[in-house]
Amino acid sequence: MAGYLQNCWYAFGWAHELENGMLARTALDMRIVAFRTADRTPAAVLDRCPHRFAPLSRGAVRDGVLHCAYHGLGFSGSGECVHNPFGSVPHKAAVRSFPLVERDHILWIWPGESALADPATIPDFSFHHKSNEQDWVVHGYIHMRTGYQIEIDNLMDLSHIETVHRGTFGGRGYINSGQLELREVGEEIHANWWMPSVPLYDLTTGAKLDSRADHFLDTRWSPPSALRLHFSFMPAGTYTGRENSAREDLPGQFQAHLLTPETQRTTHYFWSSKRPTDMNAWMTEEVGRALVLTAFEQEDKPLLEAIEANMPGEFWSSRPIILPNDGGGVRVRRRLARLIRNEQGTPGASAVVEPPEELETQQ
Amino acid sequence: MAGYLQNCWYAFGWAHELENGMLARTALDMRIVAFRTADRTPAAVLDRCPHRFAPLSRGAVRDGVLHCAYHGLGFSGSGECVHNPFGSVPHKAAVRSFPLVERDHILWIWPGESALADPATIPDFSFHHKSNEQDWVVHGYIHMRTGYQIEIDNLMDLSHIETVHRGTFGGRGYINSGQLELREVGEEIHANWWMPSVPLYDLTTGAKLDSRADHFLDTRWSPPSALRLHFSFMPAGTYTGRENSAREDLPGQFQAHLLTPETQRTTHYFWSSKRPTDMNAWMTEEVGRALVLTAFEQEDKPLLEAIEANMPGEFWSSRPIILPNDGGGVRVRRRLARLIRNEQGTPGASAVVEPPEELETQQ
Amino acid sequence: MAGYLQNCWYAFGWAHELENGMLARTALDMRIVAFRTADRTPAAVLDRCPHRFAPLSRGAVRDGVLHCAYHGLGFSGSGECVHNPFGSVPHKAAVRSFPLVERDHILWIWPGESALADPATIPDFSFHHKSNEQDWVVHGYIHMRTGYQIEIDNLMDLSHIETVHRGTFGGRGYINSGQLELREVGEEIHANWWMPSVPLYDLTTGAKLDSRADHFLDTRWSPPSALRLHFSFMPAGTYTGRENSAREDLPGQFQAHLLTPETQRTTHYFWSSKRPTDMNAWMTEEVGRALVLTAFEQEDKPLLEAIEANMPGEFWSSRPIILPNDGGGVRVRRRLARLIRNEQGTPGASAVVEPPEELETQQ
Repeated sequence: MAGYLQNCWYAFGWAHELENGMLARTALDMRIVAFRTADRTPAAVLDRCPHRFAPLSRGAVRDGVLHCAYHGLGFSGSGECVHNPFGSVPHKAAVRSFPLVERDHILWIWPGESALADPATIPDFSFHHKSNEQDWVVHGYIHMRTGYQIEIDNLMDLSHIETVHRGTFGGRGYINSGQLELREVGEEIHANWWMPSVPLYDLTTGAKLDSRADHFLDTRWSPPSALRLHFSFMPAGTYTGRENSAREDLPGQFQAHLLTPETQRTTHYFWSSKRPTDMNAWMTEEVGRALVLTAFEQEDKPLLEAIEANMPGEFWSSRPIILPNDGGGVRVRRRLARLIRNEQGTPGASAVVEPPEELETQQ
Repeated sequence: MAGYLQNCWYAFGWAHELENGMLARTALDMRIVAFRTADRTPAAVLDRCPHRFAPLSRGAVRDGVLHCAYHGLGFSGSGECVHNPFGSVPHKAAVRSFPLVERDHILWIWPGESALADPATIPDFSFHHKSNEQDWVVHGYIHMRTGYQIEIDNLMDLSHIETVHRGTFGGRGYINSGQLELREVGEEIHANWWMPSVPLYDLTTGAKLDSRADHFLDTRWSPPSALRLHFSFMPAGTYTGRENSAREDLPGQFQAHLLTPETQRTTHYFWSSKRPTDMNAWMTEEVGRALVLTAFEQEDKPLLEAIEANMPGEFWSSRPIILPNDGGGVRVRRRLARLIRNEQGTPGASAVVEPPEELETQQ
Repeated sequence: MAGYLQNCWYAFGWAHELENGMLARTALDMRIVAFRTADRTPAAVLDRCPHRFAPLSRGAVRDGVLHCAYHGLGFSGSGECVHNPFGSVPHKAAVRSFPLVERDHILWIWPGESALADPATIPDFSFHHKSNEQDWVVHGYIHMRTGYQIEIDNLMDLSHIETVHRGTFGGRGYINSGQLELREVGEEIHANWWMPSVPLYDLTTGAKLDSRADHFLDTRWSPPSALRLHFSFMPAGTYTGRENSAREDLPGQFQAHLLTPETQRTTHYFWSSKRPTDMNAWMTEEVGRALVLTAFEQEDKPLLEAIEANMPGEFWSSRPIILPNDGGGVRVRRRLARLIRNEQGTPGASAVVEPPEELETQQ
């Protein structure tokens, strides 16, 4: 069983999920509970009282202190025991705490060594903040019965929108006429599609329109498992010359896909979708929410979960056939395997299964 | 864990189950999908795309080609990749195929080496074809949470109809006054009961009638797990002299009991029952169907599943007490163990658990 | 995995549960069925026919003989085969029997060596017999998804009534002002609280009353897992001088808590509660039943089951923090570990996990 990357930031939840006091989730096989301390700073500790192992999330937060439901021991946001109803405070009864940072409406958790946690390395999802009145951002959470790397693969190879998302985003053959460019930007991996002069359709009638558009669809993966999509349909020719360069500055629609392993084979999937700033004015907040919910919950989820259940074993040892469009996903798997191996420090004894070197050109 | 016999025919389904395009089932721990190719020949392949492991049964059959739901790869009935929407066809992307033969309304699958598959060795269930207008054949499928050998045991010792089927077929003490003859016919094992001059009952009132009948109840097991029952109530004395010989040619009622291991502890149970050609004229299609459904689903199934759950371990190592009526089942278990051991080729290292030699005379 | 103590009495059920013929339960990982023989004596045998492993509890008791549902073999209360519908009685077909004693409305089972079973060592629950017309005893059964030792811990540290049972028995701070005395009486361990001069409350309004009471709350544990609670609110000063002595003879309310391991992580919990003989005259049978049902099923059960699911591993190797109020539970765990180790006879090879010596003074 491959380990998880530890010294990095994972999405633990949406900030609003803390509104009702506590948020308990299993992440990286650990039961963790987040709560707000007296000054409203979010904190996260192991969800297990060190006295008798009751889930602390069954207790209550009073004045920023988390009290166990069983015998009333109270714990601070740093995991220190600060209250005992039946005698002196047992200072040995500390519970492990985790760095937790609230940014861009997301709670980011650091499961590794606390001293190494640097909020400056949290991936940028500042698009979650509205820049004007017309903006909207819809977001949600899906529990997936599939490993997080299966989901990263899915997002790094967006050719599946032609088949899986035929009922929502795709099925118009755009990808078939597109060019895929893979870029490595620091530790990030980008998989960017450029689809020039694609036909447009009247979405109510399905009829092909006279006008055409230049379409791009750019995916940015930041380790370990935060993906941002950026895409747009632009009047054909507007941005000629941007085929092979970064398109970060161009207007378009953004999506977040934040994938946190709950266990080896289940994943917390936090997604968001922001109003497009290009020609897709017909996409209201209601349409946008309905579209992504259908695509992610009805189209992706059952298929990816069927794949997880259908895997004959660990991914690489199952010897997948690798096709050209798998390039982005394969690079992410290689990068992640290298980061985990480096962190574990012992290349020889590593539990990381790494992709064979020769895979990309199979056919 | 004992292995399965591989080079032999198992029932994979009823032919009509292919009507709606595909039939996906786990057999012998393998996920398999059957479909009809362009010329309507049935084919079976592993239900797992070699690219990203999606179940092929989530896709669609178009013009006899099975297309994956994930990225649209298409596979022929022989498992060859014949279509790729995003580029050249990856010929490495073959999926394992299995010999599949449609006969007697049954789809027979051969999980072993394809080159050895000989349709001539499919057991005869030609009684499924009606020979006249008055005939009827009812059939069905039951998913059983019990190993297939527990079910074979059940059918090879029909004395259980006196207790388990007291509410349907049995409970009249016929077996108690019968004689059991075991025969080995090639690789088949037959367990045949002869019950001369048994009393008949008015089934509506339960009253014993004046007339008596000679009753036989013959079970034919063909390896690995196809059983045919043949039984009749004949006016007493009609067939005197047939007590100890094969009664294949005598009129009577037929049943099929086809048991395909889904996993070690679950079984696909395909059954059929044909109109009796003897004195049981009261048994209409409706009565026949209701009777066997009650017997198989309400009487056998819960008891056999309770036994499976109650087994302390593997059958022989649990040291069952063997009674005289167990003779047929014990012979089948020995035969099957021998066939599996021979197939595995390595007697010393065999995973087959074989019955101890001395079991049959225990008391 | 730690073993169970074998040569001792466990509650198998309430006597009235045998009224309808049979009582089948898993105890100590063994499926067992109890029934009444011809003279109404209760008997218990392994719930598995030695012929084909059918659960005997699916059969029927006729004239004190337990008949298997599959082929009709009949077994006596001592497990001997006494009937075979299809031939001579197979005397090898014996089923294991267990000593079973009916006492104080409880069926006590001895899973160990039958020759050692001495009914004189059954713990005393004679309070189940009413001594006058006004008495009532309510009782019940709860299936718990938690190990039985977690439950013993819960009962040996009753400080949890201040937190967990705030909605029923507790939350008035009595324990906080009390003194805990631990006593070892033969193989029993007693954990007794003395809470002098506690305020009383009007239970309908919640208002504090002028009168005060001396309150005691005494727990007696008898190995392996039978607990009796005895408690009372007495007019203050009535029993001055009894703070540090046994209070068995004082009037009060009794409860039984009988915990029988079904498996390592599930428990049969038989409870009873008897009418208080002291000042709590307001507690009618209806109020008493509702109160304990709420406390045991709604307050204890979900919390203890959450603890079981939340345990990082075996109890001691999970290194619990031990607080002063855990003294009783720790002594029981030590005693039980010693008894199991002695029974297994091989200290070196023991599977018993024993508490570290230094645990009690941790803070």
